[in-house]
Amino acid sequence: MNQLLYGAAYYDEYMPYERLEQDMELMKAAHINVIRIAESTWATEEPEEGVFDFTHVERVLSVAEKAGISVIVGTPTYAIPPWLAAKHPQVLAVTPRGQGKYGPRQNMDITSPVYLFYAERVIRRLMECVSRFDNVIGYQLDNETKPYGTCGPNVLKRFGIHLRKKFGTAEALNAAYGFNYWSNRVDCWENLPDVTGTINGSYAAEFARFQRGLVDEFLAWQADIVREYAKPGQFLTHNFDYSWVGHSYGVQPEVNHKTAARCLDIAGCDIYHPSQNALTGKEIGFCGSLCRGLRHDNYLLLETEAQGFANWTPYPGQLRLQAFSHVAQGAVSVMYWHWASLHNACETYWKGILSHDLQPGAAYREVSTIGADFARLSGKLWGLRKENRVAVLVSNDALTGIENFPLPEGTNYNHVVRWLYDALYELNMNCDVIFPEDSFENYDVLLVPALYCAPKELLGRLCAFAQKGGELVAAFKTGFSDENLTVYPESQPAHLTDCFGISYEQFAVPEHTALKSDVLALPEDREARVWMELVRPEGAAVLASYEHKFWGGYAAVTENAFGKGMATYLAAMSSPGVLKTILKRVLSRAGLWGAEQEAGFPIHIESAVNQAGQRVRFYFNYSGDDIEQAYLHKDGVELLSGRPVCAGSILHMEPWGFQIVEEQAQYK
Amino acid sequence: MNQLLYGAAYYDEYMPYERLEQDMELMKAAHINVIRIAESTWATEEPEEGVFDFTHVERVLSVAEKAGISVIVGTPTYAIPPWLAAKHPQVLAVTPRGQGKYGPRQNMDITSPVYLFYAERVIRRLMECVSRFDNVIGYQLDNETKPYGTCGPNVLKRFGIHLRKKFGTAEALNAAYGFNYWSNRVDCWENLPDVTGTINGSYAAEFARFQRGLVDEFLAWQADIVREYAKPGQFLTHNFDYSWVGHSYGVQPEVNHKTAARCLDIAGCDIYHPSQNALTGKEIGFCGSLCRGLRHDNYLLLETEAQGFANWTPYPGQLRLQAFSHVAQGAVSVMYWHWASLHNACETYWKGILSHDLQPGAAYREVSTIGADFARLSGKLWGLRKENRVAVLVSNDALTGIENFPLPEGTNYNHVVRWLYDALYELNMNCDVIFPEDSFENYDVLLVPALYCAPKELLGRLCAFAQKGGELVAAFKTGFSDENLTVYPESQPAHLTDCFGISYEQFAVPEHTALKSDVLALPEDREARVWMELVRPEGAAVLASYEHKFWGGYAAVTENAFGKGMATYLAAMSSPGVLKTILKRVLSRAGLWGAEQEAGFPIHIESAVNQAGQRVRFYFNYSGDDIEQAYLHKDGVELLSGRPVCAGSILHMEPWGFQIVEEQAQYK
Amino acid sequence: MNQLLYGAAYYDEYMPYERLEQDMELMKAAHINVIRIAESTWATEEPEEGVFDFTHVERVLSVAEKAGISVIVGTPTYAIPPWLAAKHPQVLAVTPRGQGKYGPRQNMDITSPVYLFYAERVIRRLMECVSRFDNVIGYQLDNETKPYGTCGPNVLKRFGIHLRKKFGTAEALNAAYGFNYWSNRVDCWENLPDVTGTINGSYAAEFARFQRGLVDEFLAWQADIVREYAKPGQFLTHNFDYSWVGHSYGVQPEVNHKTAARCLDIAGCDIYHPSQNALTGKEIGFCGSLCRGLRHDNYLLLETEAQGFANWTPYPGQLRLQAFSHVAQGAVSVMYWHWASLHNACETYWKGILSHDLQPGAAYREVSTIGADFARLSGKLWGLRKENRVAVLVSNDALTGIENFPLPEGTNYNHVVRWLYDALYELNMNCDVIFPEDSFENYDVLLVPALYCAPKELLGRLCAFAQKGGELVAAFKTGFSDENLTVYPESQPAHLTDCFGISYEQFAVPEHTALKSDVLALPEDREARVWMELVRPEGAAVLASYEHKFWGGYAAVTENAFGKGMATYLAAMSSPGVLKTILKRVLSRAGLWGAEQEAGFPIHIESAVNQAGQRVRFYFNYSGDDIEQAYLHKDGVELLSGRPVCAGSILHMEPWGFQIVEEQAQYK
Repeated sequence: MNQLLYGAAYYDEYMPYERLEQDMELMKAAHINVIRIAESTWATEEPEEGVFDFTHVERVLSVAEKAGISVIVGTPTYAIPPWLAAKHPQVLAVTPRGQGKYGPRQNMDITSPVYLFYAERVIRRLMECVSRFDNVIGYQLDNETKPYGTCGPNVLKRFGIHLRKKFGTAEALNAAYGFNYWSNRVDCWENLPDVTGTINGSYAAEFARFQRGLVDEFLAWQADIVREYAKPGQFLTHNFDYSWVGHSYGVQPEVNHKTAARCLDIAGCDIYHPSQNALTGKEIGFCGSLCRGLRHDNYLLLETEAQGFANWTPYPGQLRLQAFSHVAQGAVSVMYWHWASLHNACETYWKGILSHDLQPGAAYREVSTIGADFARLSGKLWGLRKENRVAVLVSNDALTGIENFPLPEGTNYNHVVRWLYDALYELNMNCDVIFPEDSFENYDVLLVPALYCAPKELLGRLCAFAQKGGELVAAFKTGFSDENLTVYPESQPAHLTDCFGISYEQFAVPEHTALKSDVLALPEDREARVWMELVRPEGAAVLASYEHKFWGGYAAVTENAFGKGMATYLAAMSSPGVLKTILKRVLSRAGLWGAEQEAGFPIHIESAVNQAGQRVRFYFNYSGDDIEQAYLHKDGVELLSGRPVCAGSILHMEPWGFQIVEEQAQYK
Repeated sequence: MNQLLYGAAYYDEYMPYERLEQDMELMKAAHINVIRIAESTWATEEPEEGVFDFTHVERVLSVAEKAGISVIVGTPTYAIPPWLAAKHPQVLAVTPRGQGKYGPRQNMDITSPVYLFYAERVIRRLMECVSRFDNVIGYQLDNETKPYGTCGPNVLKRFGIHLRKKFGTAEALNAAYGFNYWSNRVDCWENLPDVTGTINGSYAAEFARFQRGLVDEFLAWQADIVREYAKPGQFLTHNFDYSWVGHSYGVQPEVNHKTAARCLDIAGCDIYHPSQNALTGKEIGFCGSLCRGLRHDNYLLLETEAQGFANWTPYPGQLRLQAFSHVAQGAVSVMYWHWASLHNACETYWKGILSHDLQPGAAYREVSTIGADFARLSGKLWGLRKENRVAVLVSNDALTGIENFPLPEGTNYNHVVRWLYDALYELNMNCDVIFPEDSFENYDVLLVPALYCAPKELLGRLCAFAQKGGELVAAFKTGFSDENLTVYPESQPAHLTDCFGISYEQFAVPEHTALKSDVLALPEDREARVWMELVRPEGAAVLASYEHKFWGGYAAVTENAFGKGMATYLAAMSSPGVLKTILKRVLSRAGLWGAEQEAGFPIHIESAVNQAGQRVRFYFNYSGDDIEQAYLHKDGVELLSGRPVCAGSILHMEPWGFQIVEEQAQYK
Repeated sequence: MNQLLYGAAYYDEYMPYERLEQDMELMKAAHINVIRIAESTWATEEPEEGVFDFTHVERVLSVAEKAGISVIVGTPTYAIPPWLAAKHPQVLAVTPRGQGKYGPRQNMDITSPVYLFYAERVIRRLMECVSRFDNVIGYQLDNETKPYGTCGPNVLKRFGIHLRKKFGTAEALNAAYGFNYWSNRVDCWENLPDVTGTINGSYAAEFARFQRGLVDEFLAWQADIVREYAKPGQFLTHNFDYSWVGHSYGVQPEVNHKTAARCLDIAGCDIYHPSQNALTGKEIGFCGSLCRGLRHDNYLLLETEAQGFANWTPYPGQLRLQAFSHVAQGAVSVMYWHWASLHNACETYWKGILSHDLQPGAAYREVSTIGADFARLSGKLWGLRKENRVAVLVSNDALTGIENFPLPEGTNYNHVVRWLYDALYELNMNCDVIFPEDSFENYDVLLVPALYCAPKELLGRLCAFAQKGGELVAAFKTGFSDENLTVYPESQPAHLTDCFGISYEQFAVPEHTALKSDVLALPEDREARVWMELVRPEGAAVLASYEHKFWGGYAAVTENAFGKGMATYLAAMSSPGVLKTILKRVLSRAGLWGAEQEAGFPIHIESAVNQAGQRVRFYFNYSGDDIEQAYLHKDGVELLSGRPVCAGSILHMEPWGFQIVEEQAQYK
């Protein structure tokens, strides 16, 4: 697998009439070289309990093999058959809304031994069947696995045992979670109350963390089974998804991607994003960077939209722009969900490459051009390595913390994450997205959005990062509570006051309060948003303060020389413009500010190093206008046209167009 | 019954003190000649199980008889007594929210044999009692019957049997509904999952259709019982209601009025509508037309507001305007809900002719003038026949289809229906509202709003209509899925591409996209709304296309000569102004455009033929302003004033006023 | 207890580390002289069933005693321990949403004998422990007690018995509640349906009243127990709270404060209010006045915000302004909730005097200045007596009535109450808030907001008030239904038509309808709001009518000489400006209009008489601006500064500042 994969999910099972050969021919003509099959089709694979029928799977594998198309086989376990629910209703997860009904996918209790028994059996039978085929290149474990809210008595029982192992005594638990409050103190493990009724955020957050752990456990269990059958060279992956706001958005609250990915060979994900005039590439950037970081390697883009919903129907050129944007992030595959639009059920309007008429249409025609380019340029674009100097640190614990103690105006953790990430994106400052489990010592700049919940150890690592010379930038709410979501009873930001040279004890919701600065040239929109901490500088320089009759004396943005580095603190949310002004200062100091950053959105530039060790520069035009953009890098060759490009020459960017330049000089 | 009926619902049972004689005298003085009694009063008729007491019913019948007032007797079955629910809780319907609680009306399982047993007994006792009275002119079966969401195990069991009978094998079911999707495939009828959890729109839609069938069955069952007692000349009716948006609005989702009306002698309905400055008469027109079409005959307006809610308190003149608007649609009765305002419970603010003081007030005084005019003009206005050349085709299946696959921005099927109907109304283009069960061969123009779900046979009839010379106008989404809500895997509009001379495979949600036309003189508001299909003309002429940077090449409105007729396709929703421009073109071609159409709203004109075979022209002023309007028809006599009116003379229309001209010439 | 109490709730149980001595020292330094302890700490007091441990309570009492700090001890019963819920799940209240889960406070069935058994035992043990301490000055029974929605079978059974005792026969019940409607008539008590499903407002309202009665009963039961232990001089109080809209707002729907307070020695309450630019003092005024009226005496302000939520973080000076505003209403204590911010659970962001760092910060520093002033001025400001001539009459029954029959646009009873109260407040017209249980004969002016539900007797008392010379002002909806929420079948306002010299039978929702007047100089914003009654003057003078094409002939505001007094009727809601114009007329006539009234908001003036019999004048600046305000009263001494102030001199008011002048002349 050392070529760009280009493909789609394919469901022979869902087709309204026989068209397998025809579909494979259409795919081949479009240079599609991989399909993903079998996930969610348990009921066709095991139509009755214990009766197995892999006809669909086998025939697709056979015909694909003849067409030279590779296959990723998904285990079918994320959608159970009616007979299983009918016979064993307890496999349906009990959630805070009671026991689920049969109908949707992802409604089962992934800890249920009954479910696991049947799941294991069908996985083994499927693996026996498919591992015979040479065109199977890998396996996808389940799909978008989550705990699905499971919190029935069996899960609560396990959670109690988990707590007992963690804390030893009820007394320790009471102390850690402040259970004295409102008489929640427990006298013994047997009387531990149902967590779903709790008003104690510490207890609730631990349960959320425990539920995320169930996903790690489940995927590892599937991995062990599948590995028994996988042949050398066949990879194991999973299709991770992101927090959803009508499209992919940020860190997934229900899964710790970092730990869940440990059992995989290669990380995979799906990325759905706004389109038409709302297409920015930001989700491709953020979600791709996060996925790339899971195993610090290239990743599979297993699903993205071909046409999707009516409000996503792509303009001409947008599918091309999107596909190469994924590649620019280090994706080694671009796969659509899905080949053909469905004629039934709840995803009827989540359209595939083919519309409901199943004929080659507008989307198919553009897909074909992408396929041709991928095939032609695979040697240049497969396995791109990103060499970023900037990282954004994200945390599931911080996310859960802010879910339990929400910010005003519906602002959640991911809004803060994206506030920071999107500013970097608009500045063409390529970056990584990392987790506390990652080391961040080697970056030059570390951005920390609202790290609300963190153990002292992690806060200490942040200090050390600055001390050793890093540029540390932290946003409000960082360093507020410990790993148990217990607020540190100390000056805030706790354990960071020395590093940032500040402290605060009060905070407010900004109301007609702007930031003002003698140091920075702030743009017009200077309003403080969502949250403002009343920061007292204690050694730090004040970059901005509040325009406020009574609180004008407090700092809003500070920077502090700490050891060999600098620590910048953002005590309030602000407009993207204000944030970019601050980041310019930080990046300049780190030697990372240049013409690329000045270029700015809607031009977006990504850089990477290819397998040949050469720099590849992607210039994307994320707008519907023709744009002329100077080429800012070393002489090279534009890969799509094959034309040489000199440093400083003008790139003519079509609406939603892009150019890819491979520099001639070898990278380092 | 060959006179205009004018009346109200009367509940002796609810009166705070004895006033029966007094009420009847007040009614008589107001020329009220009919009352509707007994519906919803089961608990007074059978105060204890098996103890019957028809005192209220009998005394009202007696006193009304003496006052010369006719009576429509309703069966009391749509509100059960507490003792029935207490003894047999299972009569309360199980809905998706669980088993209902006692309290509201319409909370029972209309398929429960326990309920049916008690209902039959009280109906028979009531009929024995009331059929003795000569002033009983008819019976109303139940009231606003619906399935009330019933979906308990017993109903689901019946539904399973229904499916087995329909499909024969589980295999056929799986194929028809695409149950392979998300592993929903069933292996045997016993494992058919509870439909209330389904994500399969086909399955859900069939259940909705099945539930509507329960209403047909229930009403037919009541009709059979009541007919055993009804004397010759006494009619059976039912009070149908419409989709509700704070007032009557469109097609009733839970009942197929067309099939449910088969067991009746005369259709009946209630129509509640906005009032004050929001009074337009559109609901009177739409709902009346639909009811008139149920049995292709005159109908009973069984309930409408006298005063209703605080935001409906009528301005002077509005009650008169409303009453004659009902008559102009072919209603042979105008009956208020209700005589007297209630002093308790949830409809306390749904005021009747009398306010809470039970004294003759503003509403009563205006009612009295209507009564006098009805009595005087009954010979001219009873049994009006409409002779419309235009029809709007509505469909419960299409409605359910779009409920399952909703349009953007909360737009539902009825919004599309009313978009078309209201444009006709504002153009004074009197029309019928028909169902797929009706023939539409004899109309000149057929408007088809979003016929999302239709069997090939119906689509074929649409083509035939155009082919034989009709003007066919279809809106977006027509011809998308078959009768099982399975999308046709063909070019859209499926089975209509030849007829309309177009096809499309993509669609989008319009965003700042206007319609533009070289052919039509479009008004200022040209925005495309809700939905836009990217239509490729294939023979059709393009009447309008999209003002859009990337999709400007697609058609938004087309027309196609097909056989002897024309087929116009509306690929996007638009402002009423744009729609009326298009309809002008269609109606002109059909020879139906004239001065009446140019007159336009707020003047509304209705025409009908009376029993004497003479044309009657209603000129309504649906505004609070004085308006001068030319009389556009043949010489005649204004019936209210008795004054002759010449063609071309000026009608002085008072605020919320109207004039009724009977043409002197015999109609055809 | 004849000094101003200044303090906070203190929870030794919740502290993250040992700091009792330190906290007491900080308090003492801030002149804090009282703490409130023990409420909600059952689980620490009885960590296991039957095992009692009052360590926390005892040590706090001891250390406080040494520090000279008094203590109010709360019974811990409003938050049950996990072991109780685990052993006896039935103590958790069954509400319309089913049985509650353990977790929150205030989730129990306060009628459960199991709960009462355990509650009594822990109260007795606590009382045995704490009554030994000399610094205990009083006891708080439970906290913010409510019925918590309890409506399980046991409660419904009691309610049925209650109804049987009230009505005697089912027949009488049917008649009173209009149960004939929708077949709700009951044949026997056994078949009385579950009230939670009812559509009958009379039935629902009686249950709400019954539930409020459970609170009276519960508190009286606790009072009896606690009194067995209380020593002479120790008071019993309760912490009442108000309707909640993100802050305290109006009459508490779930408790009849008037009757519930009967078992107390002194009334107490908590008042939370908007802060920063939204600080007006209106909640302090309204809620304080209501509490003062409960026992016609001074009251305890048991909880208010020190810092509270982020949007309440006080500006400098606001804590001072608030504290003295409470005192001006007759509060003899100002106590914060709470001393220290919490580090866990759902009130983490409801900050106390100390922030999470537990260090003396901005709030503590301002608190210290208040403490010092309280200590210094206690002799002048303790036990202030209000001598108001104006009262606002509030009613729980009217509130419930309008909950069952809501006004448009989400307007509820408390909005009408506050519309009237706030106008008085802005006019510096100090007033009392009274209940129907109070006598109102001695006031000069009585304002009656929307007294929707009232027995004839109460309406008769209103008439008598006017007849004997009072100025009676009633708002729309007054006199509409009887005590059973049955609409009076008479001309409205029922039983008040003679008094007001008007009647009406119709009403509407105003839409672009302004008030117009030949009599009053109305301000610019004259829009009628929410509700408009179409009032016919029958003897009354019309002060304003409607600017409306069709309803211009009806009156909107009337006044009527009745006996020796005047009765003013407000048939529509209006802007504060219109209302104040009307009130000026009323107050002038009553001889209550003066320079104070002209001064107006944001200057707010309160007057009271102190224990020395001298008038004290509070001038509050409820704005962030410097204001110069003439001193309008008799010569006196400004108490904070000790400076003499002459009548007519200028008071320089700082932002959020205030001055307190004790007149030199003795009051009467």
